[in-house]
Amino acid sequence: MQKLTIVKLGGSVITDKSKPLIARRSEIRRLGREILASKFKGKLIITHGSGSFGHPVAKKYKTHEGYKNDKSIRGMVLTSDAAIEINRIVMKEFIKLGMNVKSLASSSFLIAKDKKIQKGFIDPLMNILKSDVIPVTFGDVVMDKEQGFCIISAEKIIYYMVDKLSKEYSTTLIIYCSDTDGVYDESGETIPKISSKNFKNVRQMIGRSGSADVTGGMLHKVKESLKLAKNYKLEVRIINGKRIKHLKRALEGKKVVSTTILN
Amino acid sequence: MQKLTIVKLGGSVITDKSKPLIARRSEIRRLGREILASKFKGKLIITHGSGSFGHPVAKKYKTHEGYKNDKSIRGMVLTSDAAIEINRIVMKEFIKLGMNVKSLASSSFLIAKDKKIQKGFIDPLMNILKSDVIPVTFGDVVMDKEQGFCIISAEKIIYYMVDKLSKEYSTTLIIYCSDTDGVYDESGETIPKISSKNFKNVRQMIGRSGSADVTGGMLHKVKESLKLAKNYKLEVRIINGKRIKHLKRALEGKKVVSTTILN
Repeated sequence: MQKLTIVKLGGSVITDKSKPLIARRSEIRRLGREILASKFKGKLIITHGSGSFGHPVAKKYKTHEGYKNDKSIRGMVLTSDAAIEINRIVMKEFIKLGMNVKSLASSSFLIAKDKKIQKGFIDPLMNILKSDVIPVTFGDVVMDKEQGFCIISAEKIIYYMVDKLSKEYSTTLIIYCSDTDGVYDESGETIPKISSKNFKNVRQMIGRSGSADVTGGMLHKVKESLKLAKNYKLEVRIINGKRIKHLKRALEGKKVVSTTILN
Repeated sequence: MQKLTIVKLGGSVITDKSKPLIARRSEIRRLGREILASKFKGKLIITHGSGSFGHPVAKKYKTHEGYKNDKSIRGMVLTSDAAIEINRIVMKEFIKLGMNVKSLASSSFLIAKDKKIQKGFIDPLMNILKSDVIPVTFGDVVMDKEQGFCIISAEKIIYYMVDKLSKEYSTTLIIYCSDTDGVYDESGETIPKISSKNFKNVRQMIGRSGSADVTGGMLHKVKESLKLAKNYKLEVRIINGKRIKHLKRALEGKKVVSTTILN
């Protein structure tokens, strides 16, 4: 089976947390260049969060809670728009670098029920991968059969993709580019490894991210990663996407300061 | 069954044919305002073409012919990007007007085989309609199981949607906003009605559109419309989207100079 690597560019890396709707274009370009320069084999999927584009408006309108009144509909419209807007910026910068990328809008190929992905349509993703084009997907407002709509994080989309692609591709590595050197313990030191064995201890150490993140921050990432590591025998590495060449090195299987999550 | 109306905003109305990548933002806004102001009942879907965004680049790289070499991959990437770009402009203008719209990326919910839609995922569209939000979809580069990728026109997407939605919605009217007063005969007069009875005569009269349209121009529209009228007992009206209040009047079932295609 062909190997598959999935990279998530964190919203806190590609956007400026302190300034709504400001993308860090030069960081996006640098990360794109690192992907281009890295020597790794197999297929690649890129996903990204929506950072200061999606989260503040989602928080304001409580978009993750779904339909409540007419205002929530407007919030859904604006949050969707913000999520696509940051995707457009990522796409434009990557295309300018010469990368062959194709956007996959999560809300167009996924449907949720009670905040969970219920069903999806995997054929476009499969065929983009076959064409040697890099699919780029992102956390988005997805229609929800129970509550009207909800927010599906890039982490949840990654889980869905790994599962649905598992018949044709063996996902071996998922790299999260966050804005920290992995997961920190109470004294701010990187925890090098997290597995089901030390998760209970680690859980207490993980402070919830203080920013406007409606999808749950670092704890959410670690939980989803542990499930993935357990069910699909893969490794998840949380690296610092802001540090130069860390993504390139991680893609090549080289050492960088990071947290590895494995079964 | 609930009534459904579908509006297609022609690429030649919302973009400037003579200038690649220039959108007619004021026209997009006017059409949006006409939709908002019109008194019509039932659900609405908006689709649009990609005009001077998608067609010139698709023509240059022969994107409609699918994969040939590495250049065609690049062409696919650029054509996809252009199709989404005009969609973004339409979305932004509509949202600013207060319209509650949600974009549906055709290439994310459709898959083609030999230039035809083979399969799709209709759940997001269904749920957007249920939420009283207007879905906006568009002609796009769609992955193709036979030739790698192809171009699926807004007309073909409309056909697919009418068919898939027919269990829950009765599509009664499709309005094409073109840049002519309907379909012209040899002397430049509008043909008021086209049905299977007079199609053979009409066919000879329809000059192929001379612009960079890789999806077949007016003849394609008429053929797809006749199939729709026959199979789903609906009416298709081709109006001039550039004429003020023609879209509003057509949505209200009022008379405007136009070609009506019916069974």
